[in-house]
Amino acid sequence: MAVVKTRLTEQWGIRHPVLCAPMALIAGGRLVAAVSDAGGLGILGGGYAGALGGEPDLEKELALVRGRKFGVGFITWALERASQALEAALKHSPYCVFLSFGEPKPYAKRIHDAGAKVICQVQSLRHAEEALDAGADAIVAQGTEAGGHGANRSTLPLVPEIRDFLAKRAPKTLLLAAGGIADGRGLAAALMLGADGALVGTRFWASAEALTPQAMTDRAARATGDETVRTKAIDALRGVPWPQEFSFRVLKNKFTDEWAHRETEADAARGSLAKAYAQARAQQDLDMYLTVVGEATGLLHDRPSAASIIENMVAQAESLLKRGASLDFRASKVAS
Amino acid sequence: MAVVKTRLTEQWGIRHPVLCAPMALIAGGRLVAAVSDAGGLGILGGGYAGALGGEPDLEKELALVRGRKFGVGFITWALERASQALEAALKHSPYCVFLSFGEPKPYAKRIHDAGAKVICQVQSLRHAEEALDAGADAIVAQGTEAGGHGANRSTLPLVPEIRDFLAKRAPKTLLLAAGGIADGRGLAAALMLGADGALVGTRFWASAEALTPQAMTDRAARATGDETVRTKAIDALRGVPWPQEFSFRVLKNKFTDEWAHRETEADAARGSLAKAYAQARAQQDLDMYLTVVGEATGLLHDRPSAASIIENMVAQAESLLKRGASLDFRASKVAS
Repeated sequence: MAVVKTRLTEQWGIRHPVLCAPMALIAGGRLVAAVSDAGGLGILGGGYAGALGGEPDLEKELALVRGRKFGVGFITWALERASQALEAALKHSPYCVFLSFGEPKPYAKRIHDAGAKVICQVQSLRHAEEALDAGADAIVAQGTEAGGHGANRSTLPLVPEIRDFLAKRAPKTLLLAAGGIADGRGLAAALMLGADGALVGTRFWASAEALTPQAMTDRAARATGDETVRTKAIDALRGVPWPQEFSFRVLKNKFTDEWAHRETEADAARGSLAKAYAQARAQQDLDMYLTVVGEATGLLHDRPSAASIIENMVAQAESLLKRGASLDFRASKVAS
Repeated sequence: MAVVKTRLTEQWGIRHPVLCAPMALIAGGRLVAAVSDAGGLGILGGGYAGALGGEPDLEKELALVRGRKFGVGFITWALERASQALEAALKHSPYCVFLSFGEPKPYAKRIHDAGAKVICQVQSLRHAEEALDAGADAIVAQGTEAGGHGANRSTLPLVPEIRDFLAKRAPKTLLLAAGGIADGRGLAAALMLGADGALVGTRFWASAEALTPQAMTDRAARATGDETVRTKAIDALRGVPWPQEFSFRVLKNKFTDEWAHRETEADAARGSLAKAYAQARAQQDLDMYLTVVGEATGLLHDRPSAASIIENMVAQAESLLKRGASLDFRASKVAS
C-alpha cells in the first residue's frame, strides 16, 4: 500500500493527502463515502445550499456518508440566503466545512463552534488573507485550470506564494493545491510546491461513484485539455448571480462557442437564456447544458472507481517522489 | 555544488536543467552569457527580429556571448518579414534556436541544416502537434501564468498532457516547462510533472544582468502575483499585429486598469495608442509603458545575479527532491 505522509494526513488522521472537491450536483454521498473509505477525505457538494433549486437533497446525500469522516462544501455567497443549509449540515457532525467563493468570516465561528474545521478555498493571495482573518484551519489554493467556478491565478505559482505568506503569518495553517491535479504527477508536484495535500475535482468527477451523467464523462474522456474554456458569459446568460470576480470553466460546446468570448454582451443579456438552459438540462442536451471539467480532462480517459483513482494517484506520486532522491531524471519515462 | 541530472542536462551537455527565456528587450548578451557560464543555457531575446524597431542590436548582443553555448529566440510570426535576422543569428553558430508564437515548420529545416537544435515553445496540445510535425528537438510547454505573450492553458496540467502525447508519438523529444517557475519548488514540480527541465523568464527578468530598467524591477519586487493581468487589449491599442490566439501578461498599471477588460473595444481602436505608448516608453512612464512579468513576480523580492538565481534554484530543488524520498512531508517547512 503506497503511502505519502504529510502534516495533513497526520493532523487530520487520514491515510492519503487527497481530498475530493465538493462539486455541486456531482459529489454526492456515494462518491464522498467511497473517497473517505479509500483513505482520502470526501467532501459533499452542498453547492448553492438549495438557494437555486434543482440540487440533490442534502439530507439524503448526508445519510449515505454516515459513520465516515467527511466534509460538506458550500458556495459561500449562496449561504447568505440559505444559512439553514449550513445548520442542517452541521447537525450531521462533518469533520470539516468547505467554503469557497465569497467572504468566509460570517460563517467560520459558527462552524468552529459546532466542532468542525474550516477549509477556505481561495483563488488569490488576497483571498488567502481573508481566509486567515476568518480563522481558516486549511486553505485550498485553487488555480484557474480547475473546472467549474474559479478565477485567474494558476496553481503552480499560486501555491508557493501562499505558502510563503502562511510561513510568515500562520505557519500552522494547512495548505492544499487545487486545479489541474488528476494523477500522481500532479500530487507530487503539489507537494514540491509546498502544499500539504491536493484537492481533486475533475478526476473524481469522472469516477464510477460520481453523480455525473455518463454522456458527459464520455465527452470528457475524449476531450483534450485544450477543449475547455473559462468565461463569465454563461452565468450571466443563465441568470445565476455570481460575483464579478469569478468565472466558469467548462468543456467547450455550441453554447460556449457562441458566447464564451462575448462577456460584455452576455452581461447585458443577463438571464435571457435561463429558460433555454433549464430546458437543455432537463433534456441533457450537451450542446447547451454544460459539462463542467477543468483542463485535467486531458489527463483522463476512463471512469474508474474512486478507490482506484486514489490508489493509482498515491502509488504514482510515491514512485516519483522516491525517484526524485536519485536526482537523476535521465530515463525517458518519468511517470510510473 | 547542487546537481539535478535529467535527459536535458545529459544530452545537451549543460550542468543544470535551467534555460533562460529569450525575453525580448530583456535577455541580452550579458544575461545569456551569465546564465550559460553558471551552468544553465542562456537564450538571447531576438524578439521581433528587428521587424518592429526599437530592439537591441542583435549583432552587438551576439558578440557578448561569443565562446559560450547559447541559443537565440524569435517570435515566429515576426520572422516572416525578417528572415534575414534568423540567417544573421545562425552565422554565430547558436546551439539552438527557440521559436514561439506561430507556425515553426517554415524555419525548422533551415535551423537544422545550420547545425542548431530547434526548440518550439507551445501553448497548447495542438501547438505541440505542430512542433512535432516541424521536427522540434525540444518542446517548451508554456502556461498562461508566464509573463509576456502566451495563451490560456496552465503549466501544471499542460506539461503532463504533452508528456503523455510525446510518450506515444515521439518519446525522445525533450520537454521543458515554462510559466510560473521562479525557484527550486517550481523546478522540482516541473520534473515531477514529467518535464526534463524548466524555462525561466520572470526570475531572470529581475536578475542583475538583464536589460530590465531598475524602476521596473523595483515595481515587480513589491508586487504580488495577484497584480498581473493577461489581455489582448494592449497589442491591439499599440498596434502590434499579434495573432488573435495570443495575449499579453503584464504588471497591472493605469493603462491596463483602463483597458485590460475591454478587448473588443480595443480591437476596434486598433493602433490608436501607438504614439502615446511609444512616448511612454521613451519617458519610461510606467503608468503606461508595460512592466512585463508573470505571476511569479509574487515569488521574487530582489535583483540578484543570474548565477545566484541558478545556484539557489537548483539547491532548493535538490533538497526537495531528496526529501521526497522519505515520503514524509510532515514538517511545517517544506522549502529549504
